[in-house]
Amino acid sequence: MKTIHGGVTAPLGFRANGLYCGIKKSKRKDLALIYSERPCVATGAFTTNRVQASCVVINKEHLRDYNAQAIIANSGNANCMTGEQGFENTRTMASTAARLLRLRKRDVLVASTGVIGKPLPIRKIVRSMPELVGGLSRKGSEHAAAGILTTDRMNKEIAVEFLVGKRRVRVGAIAKGAGMIAPRMETAHAPKHATMLCFVTTDAAVTPAALRDAMDRAIEKSFNAISIDGDMSTNDMVVVLANGMAQNRKIVEKTPEFRLLCRALETVFLWLAKQMIRDAEGATKLAEITVRGAQSRDDARKAAQAVAGSNLVKCALFGGDPNWGRIAAAVGYSGAHVDPWKMQIRLGREIVVRNGGPLPGNAQALARAFSQKNVKITVDLGLGSYASTAYTCDLSTNYVRINSAYRT
Amino acid sequence: MKTIHGGVTAPLGFRANGLYCGIKKSKRKDLALIYSERPCVATGAFTTNRVQASCVVINKEHLRDYNAQAIIANSGNANCMTGEQGFENTRTMASTAARLLRLRKRDVLVASTGVIGKPLPIRKIVRSMPELVGGLSRKGSEHAAAGILTTDRMNKEIAVEFLVGKRRVRVGAIAKGAGMIAPRMETAHAPKHATMLCFVTTDAAVTPAALRDAMDRAIEKSFNAISIDGDMSTNDMVVVLANGMAQNRKIVEKTPEFRLLCRALETVFLWLAKQMIRDAEGATKLAEITVRGAQSRDDARKAAQAVAGSNLVKCALFGGDPNWGRIAAAVGYSGAHVDPWKMQIRLGREIVVRNGGPLPGNAQALARAFSQKNVKITVDLGLGSYASTAYTCDLSTNYVRINSAYRT
Repeated sequence: MKTIHGGVTAPLGFRANGLYCGIKKSKRKDLALIYSERPCVATGAFTTNRVQASCVVINKEHLRDYNAQAIIANSGNANCMTGEQGFENTRTMASTAARLLRLRKRDVLVASTGVIGKPLPIRKIVRSMPELVGGLSRKGSEHAAAGILTTDRMNKEIAVEFLVGKRRVRVGAIAKGAGMIAPRMETAHAPKHATMLCFVTTDAAVTPAALRDAMDRAIEKSFNAISIDGDMSTNDMVVVLANGMAQNRKIVEKTPEFRLLCRALETVFLWLAKQMIRDAEGATKLAEITVRGAQSRDDARKAAQAVAGSNLVKCALFGGDPNWGRIAAAVGYSGAHVDPWKMQIRLGREIVVRNGGPLPGNAQALARAFSQKNVKITVDLGLGSYASTAYTCDLSTNYVRINSAYRT
Repeated sequence: MKTIHGGVTAPLGFRANGLYCGIKKSKRKDLALIYSERPCVATGAFTTNRVQASCVVINKEHLRDYNAQAIIANSGNANCMTGEQGFENTRTMASTAARLLRLRKRDVLVASTGVIGKPLPIRKIVRSMPELVGGLSRKGSEHAAAGILTTDRMNKEIAVEFLVGKRRVRVGAIAKGAGMIAPRMETAHAPKHATMLCFVTTDAAVTPAALRDAMDRAIEKSFNAISIDGDMSTNDMVVVLANGMAQNRKIVEKTPEFRLLCRALETVFLWLAKQMIRDAEGATKLAEITVRGAQSRDDARKAAQAVAGSNLVKCALFGGDPNWGRIAAAVGYSGAHVDPWKMQIRLGREIVVRNGGPLPGNAQALARAFSQKNVKITVDLGLGSYASTAYTCDLSTNYVRINSAYRT
């Protein structure tokens, strides 16, 4: 597995572009397009929020046949809770792109991210679409990556390459995160919750079932394990397009090649998920919370996610204060089976609590462990053999500033 | 129902005191005692966190006979996750108070609040206990109220009076809140989660079952409906002592007198719960979120509490930004049955969304509604007839400051 340049345009046959069409006050890029020269096997995972943007509803329809060939996305407006007109605008985005690209409307996927409940300025989007299509290029990934950002400070782009037999296969992706991030996307494996968007391209030849399964597995270990503010968006989506142009032997499930694809997607998704945390609104730290020794996988997940979701733990992270009592309290209210007498908590390498009480420990080492850019918290429940890892950032005064003045 | 002065010492036969014994660096009062001249029917409700402070575990034992006569409480240290020594210290607090008050140890209840995982300075407490007992007085409620505060800025004290037959009955209470507040105490009615403490006294004559039932009902509509930061404490408790000195006909369940007692407790608890929100760490606003039209009581509760728990909604409250999209998103991820096309959201008196989309509405009126000290948010799911109300505060830069430097 090798990291390569090029983002979503690293795989053969993909072109991309991004530009400013007039939605964002900041005049930054707010429109993005990804296009494959060849028809793709395609699949997607979407928010489990029961209030869903029209793009989420319509993409699910468009993906029923596991086929797509382009993704059109805007930032600065979520086009959610915008009534019938909202649905009409999403369909217009798809049909305009389809016409210019000479595709069927249902082979175009649509994504929106930004403020909820404001009418989408569809005319600006339609007016800019010819320029957007005209500028599609094999080097356009960075422009598309910029076009989907909201409060993100930087592009999130990655690509990897691996061998399937003697054929080189590439997976590329762009993503955005920053706020309203607690994605719990519907996968075959998960309890069924940013706006986070992730668009993935690959030139692998793969069956729809194998693509869906590999995507689901990778999401569970990455995007579905992160939390910035605990607020699940109405627009979260991961979409994968696979055009087969690598001409590898078609990947099917339960084969060594399938495991390679899983590993590639997991590598790409986890890197992007961590980038989202590092670039989260107001964030200064990334915390990795591993719960092990749980009675069940669900218990491990609940406990890890409760710690990752605790405002008090996140404030302690911001302050660099190793207040592990807040970690113990969060594990306790997570709903997981917990015996405080058996629980062991570790900050970095320092064990802070064992046998129901504090260990004397090195206060300086503890403070150091909690002041790093990357903080590791390990909780061993001492009850079983299941483990789960969750990722979060600190809760800073800047997060509050950004989100108390979002629309002004 | 009449509000009267005197807090926990308003009911006949109760005395209280509070003083500084040396736990708090701020040198504010950190020890409190409430005592009844006569034995009391007593009951309590405790945190559902699976990590529970020794005082919670021991009080449950002491209350098994529904009898108690005194409450000793310290602030500045939660005495939780402090191992066997922590349990020993809680027992020492009870036994020392029992000896000085000539009670059985099991008739003394203990409460602690403050930092988790630090050894309790038990010698300071024991050394100050004679002075604490010596200073018990019929006017000591305010001192006890001060003795249990942590980051609270003000005392929380109330008393009411009502007639049972021709006898005047009084209910008094003190409480503390401020942080780590998302109490979901175990009651007979509730799904089973600050440190919030509430000590209630009454001179009513009442059966144990009626007292427990009335307390449980009142908690569900008050303390269990509030959330400051979503973090459930290891030490939450409500304890009620009823000494019967009003000499009313003994209150039993399903009688008009029982309903009076329920109303009195509900009035007292709801007032205290709202005071906790108003005095919450960094809070500048109180928000009352009512969800109606739900398919079930549980759905109504889930939806109201999801909105109350949303960091993004709370940041919008802080900024006075009527960003109702965040409310819709929180309702959507609450787990309640939601049909976005049927959902109606109201900020103050202004309807902002109906039929799946925004209403034009008066932007100024909206901004005004969201800038009040008391903000009312009403969500009608349009699916049924169940309703629930939750209470929260805004999430401010000060909340983060307070909690990123709590122990320093």
